[in-house]
Amino acid sequence: MTNTLLGPIAGGERYELTSPTAMPMAGGFLWNRRMMIHATCRGYATAQFMQPEPAKYAHAPNLEAKTFMQPEQAYYAHHPGRFVYVKDEETGELFSAPYEPVRAKLDSFRFIAGQHDLGWTVEHLGLRVELVLGLPTDDVAELWELRVSNLSGRARRISVVPYFPIGNMSWMNQSAEWRADLGGIVANCVTPYQKVADYFKNLHLKDKTVLLCERTPDAWEARQSAFEGEGGLHNPSALQAEQLAGGDARYETPAASVQYRLSLQANEGQVLRFLFGPAFDDAEIAQLRTTYLSEAGFERTRQAYAAYIASGSGCLQVQTPDAEFDNFVNHWLPRQVFYHGDVNRLSTDPQTRNYLQDNLGMAYIAPQVTRGALLHALSQQAANGAMPDGILLIEGAELKYINQVPHTDHCVWLPVCLQAYLDETGDFALLDEVVNDLTVAERLDAAMAWLHQDRDARGLSFIAQGDWCDPMNMVGYKGRGVSGWLTVAAAHAMKLWAAICDASGRSGARWRDAAGELNAAANRHLWDGDWFARGITDDDVKFGIAADKEGRIYLNPQAWAMLSGAASEAQRAKMIAAVEDQLETPHGVAMFAPPYSRMRDDVGRVTQKHPGSAENGAVYNHAASFYIHALYEGGDGERAFKLLRQMIPGPDMADYLQRGQLPVFIPNYYRGAHREYPRTAGRSSQLFNTGTAAWAYRCVIEGLCGLRGDALGLRVQPQLPAGWDELRARRELRGATFHLNVRRTGVASVKLDGQPLPDGLVRGIEAGREYRLDVELG
Amino acid sequence: MTNTLLGPIAGGERYELTSPTAMPMAGGFLWNRRMMIHATCRGYATAQFMQPEPAKYAHAPNLEAKTFMQPEQAYYAHHPGRFVYVKDEETGELFSAPYEPVRAKLDSFRFIAGQHDLGWTVEHLGLRVELVLGLPTDDVAELWELRVSNLSGRARRISVVPYFPIGNMSWMNQSAEWRADLGGIVANCVTPYQKVADYFKNLHLKDKTVLLCERTPDAWEARQSAFEGEGGLHNPSALQAEQLAGGDARYETPAASVQYRLSLQANEGQVLRFLFGPAFDDAEIAQLRTTYLSEAGFERTRQAYAAYIASGSGCLQVQTPDAEFDNFVNHWLPRQVFYHGDVNRLSTDPQTRNYLQDNLGMAYIAPQVTRGALLHALSQQAANGAMPDGILLIEGAELKYINQVPHTDHCVWLPVCLQAYLDETGDFALLDEVVNDLTVAERLDAAMAWLHQDRDARGLSFIAQGDWCDPMNMVGYKGRGVSGWLTVAAAHAMKLWAAICDASGRSGARWRDAAGELNAAANRHLWDGDWFARGITDDDVKFGIAADKEGRIYLNPQAWAMLSGAASEAQRAKMIAAVEDQLETPHGVAMFAPPYSRMRDDVGRVTQKHPGSAENGAVYNHAASFYIHALYEGGDGERAFKLLRQMIPGPDMADYLQRGQLPVFIPNYYRGAHREYPRTAGRSSQLFNTGTAAWAYRCVIEGLCGLRGDALGLRVQPQLPAGWDELRARRELRGATFHLNVRRTGVASVKLDGQPLPDGLVRGIEAGREYRLDVELG
Repeated sequence: MTNTLLGPIAGGERYELTSPTAMPMAGGFLWNRRMMIHATCRGYATAQFMQPEPAKYAHAPNLEAKTFMQPEQAYYAHHPGRFVYVKDEETGELFSAPYEPVRAKLDSFRFIAGQHDLGWTVEHLGLRVELVLGLPTDDVAELWELRVSNLSGRARRISVVPYFPIGNMSWMNQSAEWRADLGGIVANCVTPYQKVADYFKNLHLKDKTVLLCERTPDAWEARQSAFEGEGGLHNPSALQAEQLAGGDARYETPAASVQYRLSLQANEGQVLRFLFGPAFDDAEIAQLRTTYLSEAGFERTRQAYAAYIASGSGCLQVQTPDAEFDNFVNHWLPRQVFYHGDVNRLSTDPQTRNYLQDNLGMAYIAPQVTRGALLHALSQQAANGAMPDGILLIEGAELKYINQVPHTDHCVWLPVCLQAYLDETGDFALLDEVVNDLTVAERLDAAMAWLHQDRDARGLSFIAQGDWCDPMNMVGYKGRGVSGWLTVAAAHAMKLWAAICDASGRSGARWRDAAGELNAAANRHLWDGDWFARGITDDDVKFGIAADKEGRIYLNPQAWAMLSGAASEAQRAKMIAAVEDQLETPHGVAMFAPPYSRMRDDVGRVTQKHPGSAENGAVYNHAASFYIHALYEGGDGERAFKLLRQMIPGPDMADYLQRGQLPVFIPNYYRGAHREYPRTAGRSSQLFNTGTAAWAYRCVIEGLCGLRGDALGLRVQPQLPAGWDELRARRELRGATFHLNVRRTGVASVKLDGQPLPDGLVRGIEAGREYRLDVELG
Repeated sequence: MTNTLLGPIAGGERYELTSPTAMPMAGGFLWNRRMMIHATCRGYATAQFMQPEPAKYAHAPNLEAKTFMQPEQAYYAHHPGRFVYVKDEETGELFSAPYEPVRAKLDSFRFIAGQHDLGWTVEHLGLRVELVLGLPTDDVAELWELRVSNLSGRARRISVVPYFPIGNMSWMNQSAEWRADLGGIVANCVTPYQKVADYFKNLHLKDKTVLLCERTPDAWEARQSAFEGEGGLHNPSALQAEQLAGGDARYETPAASVQYRLSLQANEGQVLRFLFGPAFDDAEIAQLRTTYLSEAGFERTRQAYAAYIASGSGCLQVQTPDAEFDNFVNHWLPRQVFYHGDVNRLSTDPQTRNYLQDNLGMAYIAPQVTRGALLHALSQQAANGAMPDGILLIEGAELKYINQVPHTDHCVWLPVCLQAYLDETGDFALLDEVVNDLTVAERLDAAMAWLHQDRDARGLSFIAQGDWCDPMNMVGYKGRGVSGWLTVAAAHAMKLWAAICDASGRSGARWRDAAGELNAAANRHLWDGDWFARGITDDDVKFGIAADKEGRIYLNPQAWAMLSGAASEAQRAKMIAAVEDQLETPHGVAMFAPPYSRMRDDVGRVTQKHPGSAENGAVYNHAASFYIHALYEGGDGERAFKLLRQMIPGPDMADYLQRGQLPVFIPNYYRGAHREYPRTAGRSSQLFNTGTAAWAYRCVIEGLCGLRGDALGLRVQPQLPAGWDELRARRELRGATFHLNVRRTGVASVKLDGQPLPDGLVRGIEAGREYRLDVELG
């Protein structure tokens, strides 16, 4: 990535992109405890905040559907964004920063995706425009700093016009006007409703959107249509006049545009600050202004927000021969894990499996959060041991969308999450905590018992309308179909719980036996000769087998059969060979192959996603991360690292361009179907909500670095890829710090503070102590 | 309107607009029994079809909410539309027809809103582009004829590129490609769903969108983003190349663009034909092509569609001193009435009041439809006499949206609709028809009895969460609030039913007495000195009274108190004066005034619409039409006509420009709040779904022309405005034709076929006979 187009700066804490057209969808995201904003390099933005359900303060120009976050969102001229027009008042020339909507050929362009802020610097017409977006930690507000500098060596007269479209706020009521008393444009609406009960629900919604200006502008316009005029957003009519007309929007689409007519001396720069976001009332707007809208307020907020992000920086720092991998692991991957764990994808009813896996990741960031999440999830367990489809996070939340469709895998994630937490903390006292009259251990027993009984006469786990990842909604909706993946996943979950039982003085024998039953059933009914089948439908059709032309092999049953012990060494070898042959692609390992070309109505939604999209034949990173975990668990670190490395955008420019994404998060998928549709294969979904993050971080910590906690202490067993001769890492665990130094010397050994440690197990970790681990590889 | 900007042509059957910028939202609409399309003069289009719920085949670029039709829809660059780019291959110059997205300054522009088709003719760069859109009568398909003519007097090489965006079809799956076998671009998706049951519901949906080309294009592109490129829709990158790249869309936003590279001799013209619409499968696409996509197919379809529209041409033709009024009444108003009555606003669960009023209008177009609708509505009457909030039109339909909110007025519309039907047909046999074991008469009795009992101790009608027009959702949601309008409306309904009873040999005394009770209660509790109050809230707060600063006077209680007889002559005079003083505006008569500036949470949603928008202070034409009807009924034809005439866009250019609408329909509202927000006051909602159409037509027929059927025959009593000295009309009634000739001579008389008719009542109408009516006014 030694390329002028894209590169890491500030030691990898920031990534810089120098073209707005090479990767049009590339961007970055910021979040805090109340909101999230994803901005593209070109200036489009998608922001959501919680009140308490997800809501928007900048909208599409039409009445937009409320939906979960979508992959590969399409952008278009009137998509919400944050734009600054700059007009040379002497020549009439116009451009916009960062790039949209004018799309001028800029002299230079830089988009900088940082951990704490997003920034753009563009130069054109002898002017430099710098934009920086930051967030506060607990308020819903965008803080924009805009610096305009005169590079031309002569005095200039220019207009600088921030244009923040607000879009269709409400079919019931919308307006916007300049409020001199508040110093900004305030748009207002009433969230639409029809039933009286909803009126009372909506009473406390923030129905205003404001653009507050630190410095009073010379002119303003609050009507989108008047701003655009016949000129179009690329050449707005309002900017052809000397100044904006100052029109209120009255049931017209609002937009916030303010004009500063600036005279800049040679080399002079001026700074403007703005606050953009939702508000409840005038008092809140005034308070936002007082709190934030000043140089000191911005600086104070920047520091507090940096501290917030730093609080999620994770338990690992690595130094390897792959500097970009290091950047990703040290800065970006824990940040993505923290985002998931701290705000639960900005949802009030996360899917149970997501909630538990996101909190699995949190075990490596802030394990007390994981502890709380486990207890909270268990508080919603049904009397029969089943877990609900979603976990309600607040009073009054409801199970929505996909969480109204019955899935059968949720119990699996309890021991999976619990094990990671216990490995990290050794906090076995958690098992005796009482949740609604039952201990955690009793609840785990009940969950495993539910999984044990929810099987058919063959001993295979029912799938109902889906298991992991939602796509297989028609395999078992009649109540008979079974899941090959879930059968072995349940076995794995039982084994994990059995081991926890053993380690905590309970007996795990019952669950080891039960896992054995499930594994045996899987082998008896689902082993297809070279891999495990994905399932058997209501009508007794086995699928995900060699006889299938499409959807012949699925990754998940193989990964989890390896984890559960269902697969013998011989089977494992065959499965890995089959995965390599049929699922590994230049863009990662696919979730299944070949992609479906048409509906198979005993399988379901997965087949209706077009080849090259989402689940259908895609490199679904979450599934890939399970497989990588299983490979590391089985000691196949070489293969594991190859696939892990593929998950991270890059490393070469061709890969960046094909994926169209900066290396600041792992997306939920890359397009698949690379044989059928090579043009689109590898494209990033651009969607950073994914259970992948937690698993990938775990794979780096426990697999690659081999630094895994357990009941007794820390187990040390790094698995370096063949091309690497050394690795350094700093690992925090239970208050202690471990400095790992791995070298490939040809003679295997582990030393703790210079002393041989033959079994690789650091016992009796002392909080506050620094340990040195020297590992030599054979 | 003798203006080059806008004018009637073809005897008023078509309206012509010669600028795309003067009235940017102005357009026209076409419909058939399965679909509706509204196209603006600039080329944007909104189309819906029934399968059986409303669906789209050309979508917004984002995930759009499903909603009822919205007023004042906002357009933006990527809004669905039908565009044709024209590029001069020698100079590279570009424009688009009709206007969007290039927005070139055209040499000439004509948009022609016809009854059977919509057309555009634009000239630029020495070329003429003519576009005509027609529909078949029963299929869902747009038929586009595109004619390109070379006016430049020299040979030309050009590219003609129809560009029909398809938008975001589905988050689950979307694609598009050229299908040589079918001769067009076929986009495909799966309507998204999450619950298995929905899969089976969706199985028969038309999930494809096709652009079929009669002539094979030279090149094509199915990807929106590739078509637009960095150039933007106003200057698409794809058109900078010699020819379109021919790319399939794979989970990319689809668009249908096809390129014809034409060489035109001087004065040469070429015609291209296209079909655009949804389809279920390849077989249907092939069938659509065979049926329609040829010169002969277009011509055959055009004739059949014209015949369909002609079947709804109504029962009246007038000739007055106001030619544009004549155009509207003779061509456009019955067309709008027919649209409502024949397709029920493209809904499967029309609100009961809408369904009955739309079918009231149909009594003047095709009374057998009204008969069927009355019987159908009554078949859904509850056992206690109440009517449901919506009428389900098809098996499996559900009450949606507003129809889940309890309203108390639905029974009122039964006798209102029935009376119009009986006046028109004299078909009293309908009253003895049996619907679910009860006769129509018994069901009307039950409905009136329900209204009679659904009152409080004061004798006033409960409002629950609303009555007419939905906005007052908080007056009575606790079960105590009452409606002033509904109290007198129920009295009026009872009186109408009483009169029908009397005319059909039943006794109406019971219902006349009941009406008397309601009128008395209204007078006792709601008369405010100069007008009737709008209601009394749950907490006993009277509103719509002189003491209110906002919402002081409402139109509906006055109109219906006049109809019900609650108002004495003295009261009537006071009310009319108050309405004139407080509600009449330059744009029509407002529904209430002054507009609310803030929420009054004992009134409800009406107060949350911004002044200048929808119900809040608007000229809500439906309410105005009741008032006009009441004025005509009371013999105040002068005032009635003034307000009726205001409803029709025009007559002067300033009015057209302010309203922004062609005179081809009455919109549901014009913006109000003309004192508070004069800039926007008078703007048309652009929404042609409104109960106004039926009432306005009725007012013209029965009020202005005074040609009203009754049990005995035809009552003749024209009410010409003072400025008119004559009026001619042809009226169809019960198979007979009446030729009316009204003159203001100063001596009142009515003659039938030359013989004096002192009581103005034509008895014993003979079907097939032509009657001549000569009326002289005093």
